[in-house]
Amino acid sequence: MMKKTLSALLLMLLSMSFAPAQQKPNVIILFADDMGYGDVGINGHPTIRTPHLDRMAMEGMRWTNFYSTSPACTASRYGLLTGRYPERSGFGWVLNPDSPRGIHPKEETLAELLKAQGYRTAMYGKWHLGTTNQEFLPLQNGFDEYLGLPYSNDMIPPKWPDIPLLSGNDTLELNPDQTKLTALYTEKALDFIRKCEDEPFFIYLPYAMPHVPLYPGEAFQGKSKRGQYGDVIEEIDWSVGQILDYLRENGMAENTLVWFTSDNGPWIIKDELGGSSGLFRDGKGSTWEGGQREPSFLWWPGEVDPGRVNMSIASTKDVYTTVAKLVGAEIPVDRVVDGIDLFSSEEMTQDSERTFFYYGFDNTVFAVRKGKWKLHIRTHSQTGNKHFEDPLPLLFDLDTDPSEKYNLAKDHPEIVLELLTHVESHQQLGAENPDFYTLEEKQ
Amino acid sequence: MMKKTLSALLLMLLSMSFAPAQQKPNVIILFADDMGYGDVGINGHPTIRTPHLDRMAMEGMRWTNFYSTSPACTASRYGLLTGRYPERSGFGWVLNPDSPRGIHPKEETLAELLKAQGYRTAMYGKWHLGTTNQEFLPLQNGFDEYLGLPYSNDMIPPKWPDIPLLSGNDTLELNPDQTKLTALYTEKALDFIRKCEDEPFFIYLPYAMPHVPLYPGEAFQGKSKRGQYGDVIEEIDWSVGQILDYLRENGMAENTLVWFTSDNGPWIIKDELGGSSGLFRDGKGSTWEGGQREPSFLWWPGEVDPGRVNMSIASTKDVYTTVAKLVGAEIPVDRVVDGIDLFSSEEMTQDSERTFFYYGFDNTVFAVRKGKWKLHIRTHSQTGNKHFEDPLPLLFDLDTDPSEKYNLAKDHPEIVLELLTHVESHQQLGAENPDFYTLEEKQ
Repeated sequence: MMKKTLSALLLMLLSMSFAPAQQKPNVIILFADDMGYGDVGINGHPTIRTPHLDRMAMEGMRWTNFYSTSPACTASRYGLLTGRYPERSGFGWVLNPDSPRGIHPKEETLAELLKAQGYRTAMYGKWHLGTTNQEFLPLQNGFDEYLGLPYSNDMIPPKWPDIPLLSGNDTLELNPDQTKLTALYTEKALDFIRKCEDEPFFIYLPYAMPHVPLYPGEAFQGKSKRGQYGDVIEEIDWSVGQILDYLRENGMAENTLVWFTSDNGPWIIKDELGGSSGLFRDGKGSTWEGGQREPSFLWWPGEVDPGRVNMSIASTKDVYTTVAKLVGAEIPVDRVVDGIDLFSSEEMTQDSERTFFYYGFDNTVFAVRKGKWKLHIRTHSQTGNKHFEDPLPLLFDLDTDPSEKYNLAKDHPEIVLELLTHVESHQQLGAENPDFYTLEEKQ
Repeated sequence: MMKKTLSALLLMLLSMSFAPAQQKPNVIILFADDMGYGDVGINGHPTIRTPHLDRMAMEGMRWTNFYSTSPACTASRYGLLTGRYPERSGFGWVLNPDSPRGIHPKEETLAELLKAQGYRTAMYGKWHLGTTNQEFLPLQNGFDEYLGLPYSNDMIPPKWPDIPLLSGNDTLELNPDQTKLTALYTEKALDFIRKCEDEPFFIYLPYAMPHVPLYPGEAFQGKSKRGQYGDVIEEIDWSVGQILDYLRENGMAENTLVWFTSDNGPWIIKDELGGSSGLFRDGKGSTWEGGQREPSFLWWPGEVDPGRVNMSIASTKDVYTTVAKLVGAEIPVDRVVDGIDLFSSEEMTQDSERTFFYYGFDNTVFAVRKGKWKLHIRTHSQTGNKHFEDPLPLLFDLDTDPSEKYNLAKDHPEIVLELLTHVESHQQLGAENPDFYTLEEKQ
């Protein structure tokens, strides 16, 4: 008995001397492209196998009212990395490869914020926040390392010029074999983790897919029951498993926060090549719930209780503020940052008071949610679906009616009015940082 | 060291002497009424909390291609308790309180089969297999004990006579307070488990709800975010937790198989009072997937691997055969039993060859599934929804297209033909037991 106690004590002392004092937690963001709320086993998909994501959710927190900042690619990523509605910078929707615009140089990205806190930062995957000027690229926006496609994987010849696989600011290869991308990004992320040893690190891994065209890796082709779409999701699931397993096996799990989510809803106009938003209506490009309600899993063993289902309203903008608060960084005060700290119990309990604005394709507010109520001022579907004959605005109780089937506008004119007032004051707020607009925009 | 080994040995001997030799496993079937595939946390519902069902699924097996035998109440329960398509006995759809028909006396129910194997058998809940003749009731069909409403909870005054709460064959009370039913059935089940001690037992607990009208128990009223429907599901979840906790805490988990599922899809014509079939189309009464695809969790610690997601085609009819094989009972040979043994690896791997027939409201085949292919010969929706302009038959690949959105009939005429052939031979089989028809039917 004596011997056992002694060796336990020794072990404790040893582990104390090896663990760096007050090591800041590592942060990894795994970001799918066009994956729907319903495209994961633990959200009910019947034929896509996602054992690693399911396990991640069961060991961590699963969100059920988690939104992307936008139903479209560029705007969504802008919100994730800045904590702000991109429209505050006159920014929105999707950039083309030849667009003269890019992320505003004054934005302080999550990577810049973490770098200033002593983090080593790396990004592997899709950027899509500007490419025509070097200052728009990841290395100039807080990332020490970058490798990936700088925009969507369908912006390729013959419609567009050759797509580069960038390494830092340089082109490594043109029109790379997309079947190798998921494995490549995963391997780069693992290499970076190995390199960082005792330094805190931030990795942002925005996968190229399941954005169409779908290119599953060789080992995954034809392996899922759900066709190419399922093959691609199952490869992403494998990638998540590789990263979590590495953290588990190397004693890093309890010092690494990993967040998985997607940039917007499924691209349903692509038919079988697009995904599923589960019980939600519509998909990518739409401000119906299917356009922005995302699978979201937060994994951090020892810090996040296993198996917790979180029904609070949250969004990718909150990742910025949550991580900033976590590492003790100051949030910029010369601009509006919309994200809240999701770990703050005060903010979490104010759930019912929180508003969330849904921006449509012309960068104006199409809908607003406050607590359980959602008001549509305008609606749009890429499929051309007209879901209601009722006149706008439409009002839904999302708690009772998550599928937005029963318009209650006539029954609750007072709620309609209240939500319209919120939209109006939010729109007035929108112009508070005029110098955040790019030159192109101001001319 | 010596001492430890000795006490371990003693413990082993002790446990051997207390455990009955070759004790047959207890069997519990928990059966919701009109609960949809999407109405459980682990299948993605965003606002209904089901921690006990989620845990049950994670500790056991979760099915994603599991069907009720019918999209309607009586026929579904007939299939569950006999392992047969009810149409083989000229039976189908829904009985009214005054219907002269009931389960055919020659049927061998799962309760009768288990009773013959030495099981004590009890049922608490909704019967709905005939009430106008005592021979139709549970006590005459294999159950030692019965307490419950004999048919649906909406078959009440003023449209119907007073509804009895039966205890055995006797009326205990008329028009009982339905808010107390879930708790009552749960308490009766726990009492029965306690009574059985070392005897193997079978409990069939078909809840009265979420069939409309919804009567959550007092402790659950207004507690869920999902309105009364959510309150009722959360009470059922509580009930499941009560039973599983009792088994866990009393060392019975490893000798008790518990199966949770629902009788048919959600009653979507009831609007917010009805549930959700998740990503599946339509609901109760329809042979679209939402009418019969069910949440299904099989829990048996030590025997069923935890966290397994099973994508094989299975149905409530298979519960009969699976349980029969498990306890070493003979399946009746003088009739067709449609269920298969889901624990037989041989059967499970033949997944792709298996056919499943969807019977519509007039007790004829509306659709058929073989492997991933589903053919609709007729369609019907209680909502009046016409989902397709395309001419019948409609063909879907359910693996790639679980939401039945992309009709492939024109692309695969050979599959259409093959499936039509299966329907034809199945219909010819339908009349092989003419003496299973009731007198009323034959006249």
